[in-house]
Amino acid sequence: MESPKKASTDRLEAFSDGIFAVAQTLLILDVRIPDSTTVALASQLSKLLPHIYAFVLSFLIVMFYWTAHHVVFNVIVRSDRRLLWVNALHLLFVVFLPFSTGVLAEFPDAPLAVDIYGTNIILCSLSLIALWLYAARERLLSDELSAADVRTVGWRLAVNPIVCAAALCVAFISTMAAILLYLVTPVWYILTGPDVAAGDAGTWRLPAPFRRRTRARSPK
Amino acid sequence: MESPKKASTDRLEAFSDGIFAVAQTLLILDVRIPDSTTVALASQLSKLLPHIYAFVLSFLIVMFYWTAHHVVFNVIVRSDRRLLWVNALHLLFVVFLPFSTGVLAEFPDAPLAVDIYGTNIILCSLSLIALWLYAARERLLSDELSAADVRTVGWRLAVNPIVCAAALCVAFISTMAAILLYLVTPVWYILTGPDVAAGDAGTWRLPAPFRRRTRARSPK
Amino acid sequence: MESPKKASTDRLEAFSDGIFAVAQTLLILDVRIPDSTTVALASQLSKLLPHIYAFVLSFLIVMFYWTAHHVVFNVIVRSDRRLLWVNALHLLFVVFLPFSTGVLAEFPDAPLAVDIYGTNIILCSLSLIALWLYAARERLLSDELSAADVRTVGWRLAVNPIVCAAALCVAFISTMAAILLYLVTPVWYILTGPDVAAGDAGTWRLPAPFRRRTRARSPK
Amino acid sequence: MESPKKASTDRLEAFSDGIFAVAQTLLILDVRIPDSTTVALASQLSKLLPHIYAFVLSFLIVMFYWTAHHVVFNVIVRSDRRLLWVNALHLLFVVFLPFSTGVLAEFPDAPLAVDIYGTNIILCSLSLIALWLYAARERLLSDELSAADVRTVGWRLAVNPIVCAAALCVAFISTMAAILLYLVTPVWYILTGPDVAAGDAGTWRLPAPFRRRTRARSPK
Repeated sequence: MESPKKASTDRLEAFSDGIFAVAQTLLILDVRIPDSTTVALASQLSKLLPHIYAFVLSFLIVMFYWTAHHVVFNVIVRSDRRLLWVNALHLLFVVFLPFSTGVLAEFPDAPLAVDIYGTNIILCSLSLIALWLYAARERLLSDELSAADVRTVGWRLAVNPIVCAAALCVAFISTMAAILLYLVTPVWYILTGPDVAAGDAGTWRLPAPFRRRTRARSPK
Repeated sequence: MESPKKASTDRLEAFSDGIFAVAQTLLILDVRIPDSTTVALASQLSKLLPHIYAFVLSFLIVMFYWTAHHVVFNVIVRSDRRLLWVNALHLLFVVFLPFSTGVLAEFPDAPLAVDIYGTNIILCSLSLIALWLYAARERLLSDELSAADVRTVGWRLAVNPIVCAAALCVAFISTMAAILLYLVTPVWYILTGPDVAAGDAGTWRLPAPFRRRTRARSPK
Repeated sequence: MESPKKASTDRLEAFSDGIFAVAQTLLILDVRIPDSTTVALASQLSKLLPHIYAFVLSFLIVMFYWTAHHVVFNVIVRSDRRLLWVNALHLLFVVFLPFSTGVLAEFPDAPLAVDIYGTNIILCSLSLIALWLYAARERLLSDELSAADVRTVGWRLAVNPIVCAAALCVAFISTMAAILLYLVTPVWYILTGPDVAAGDAGTWRLPAPFRRRTRARSPK
Repeated sequence: MESPKKASTDRLEAFSDGIFAVAQTLLILDVRIPDSTTVALASQLSKLLPHIYAFVLSFLIVMFYWTAHHVVFNVIVRSDRRLLWVNALHLLFVVFLPFSTGVLAEFPDAPLAVDIYGTNIILCSLSLIALWLYAARERLLSDELSAADVRTVGWRLAVNPIVCAAALCVAFISTMAAILLYLVTPVWYILTGPDVAAGDAGTWRLPAPFRRRTRARSPK
């Protein structure tokens, strides 16, 4: 009975994956190709640098959300209609990132542009937290997950929006510092985050950093 | 014998999903990134608002059609050549939405733009109804579906184009009212619509709002 | 032994499907959104009509090639390295269609534009025929397929490039007539073509129009 | 125990495939559609030729990396968190190719543009080599692979960046010669490269050119 239900979130995940992949690739369109009719290439490249930095930044951030999305859906084993629409809200904010990235690249020194970008990230995170809380309340999660596990994951998901909210204020002092703050959680996640691929494997397994110490270590 | 036939609509659905995902993500390209060489960002943002509203509107509407597409294909268990092309017609109108959205965002006060957008939605709905009627006539539907069920789904699919046809007229009085009318069916669907994910699960199950009262409730 | 080999062409088909879906959706970007700062919407719509016609034309043609691609891969049960690259050549010409479509829409009265478009279609067809002949020569096809079947499919695939080659000449007399000729094969295919979905079903079955009369009818 | 682990890299591969397919299709957007309001089509086509050459070049190169990616993932049977991020780095450089292609097409005679393009290719290759070395060091590879096999694949992957590094210097003498050098490895790969499709088939099989002579030939 569990397996067909799991199959249903698979389709939702496949559709979400498609949107993640397209959004992540569209980011490159923000790095506009210089025009050969005006000036030499070399003199145009320096103007392109903020666009390239913004592309790399957003590529990592979309990858980070793709990973987080999978970690969350690894433990969501049941699904209902409202979950679909909370997920749609999350995807909406992810699809918005190519726009925010373009604004950030055009106005890298404007606190307003940096804050638009940060707000977009915060909305991505808050919608993911909403997804998690909804799934927990409606008991759509795997039964292997204890109430403490649910709280731990919830708090960990809350780290990114809290850091980014601080960055929103920092942007008025230094836009560069704010942008670096946006990178803190993804980089922390890359270095210590959960093992999505292994977590996908058949039976459910809470990813390492979400696992409580008291559990026996699963054999590698 | 049923299962390989079902597999064949899976491929059609996977291809359709790809088109839905790309169309939905391309919508963000309509929100054009402001140019830093002309004026300050803040003064450009107000001009962007209609584009952002139109993006959110269309994102919800494509999501709504993706859901409706799945509900319909949940109960289509056989497939034939003409079904493929009626489906292609539906996809054509869905892929057209990023254009209509862009026109609406550029001319939010023009009844013509609002009506182009509404006509596009009506064509999406009519082609989906055509798909449903064709599948019903050619007996491509699950045998579990009664004639009354088929009629109920048909009428429910007809709600959206009827509301939107009314909106086409309203647009000449108030474009804002017309746009709000376009949102009525998707929002009603989000709040009370069928549970796509659960409906996907292995054996066929008519989604809740399409189910007749007399049927026993399936165990959750 | 057959089934894992079939699995390998599944992955190639899935990747090809992705490219087909993206190319088909990108077509809408050729229908450029009118600019609200210059003139009224109504006066700009007439200039958009060739773009919309070209979009619908190319949407049908990409759908036609997607169908043809599946019919061909339904009976290709083995795969090798060169098949991958002949397939890549076919995809290259399919991905080129959004460009040819844009040129056709910009210059609908120029025989040169109509011929660029037609040449693109011919190259799509020739690369698909090359794929078919290569698969036949290297014995990558299902053993159920007789030599006569292989020839029949080959000739049927040749209809489109022959009609389009005629259209290339007709374009110098009437561009409209040439464009209508491009539509002949896809429309003929839509009305009488093979049943891709059913053909996908598990065991191999030559699609109806490719089947020789002498064969017993397979049970529906 | 092996099969669920393999399943997890399947998801990573499916996501990567999506990004490859979108990046490959976005290349066509670099071939900008001529404007009918300025000059005749024929006189604009010659300016388009470098864009078309660059499109074909990059289409083949992305296809080449898609093939290489699959060959590598055919023998990666276990996965961990860091592999995901090394793979993300590889995808980042692949997604960057549409930009480099556009720059190359705009400035086909500028050594700087040719070197930007070449650097992008080198980074694609180096990140793939990093993926391979990481997988080998962390013992994520199939146990059927001998240490000699691992070294052979590593050296073969190193051919492309070495040729391209030479091309970076050649570009200052002849940009055309440098561009032809970029094509050497993909063409060599097309003519003699591994059989990805067959290699995908269920049980692992080192693709022909990576196989050591001493092994018995697997039955075709």
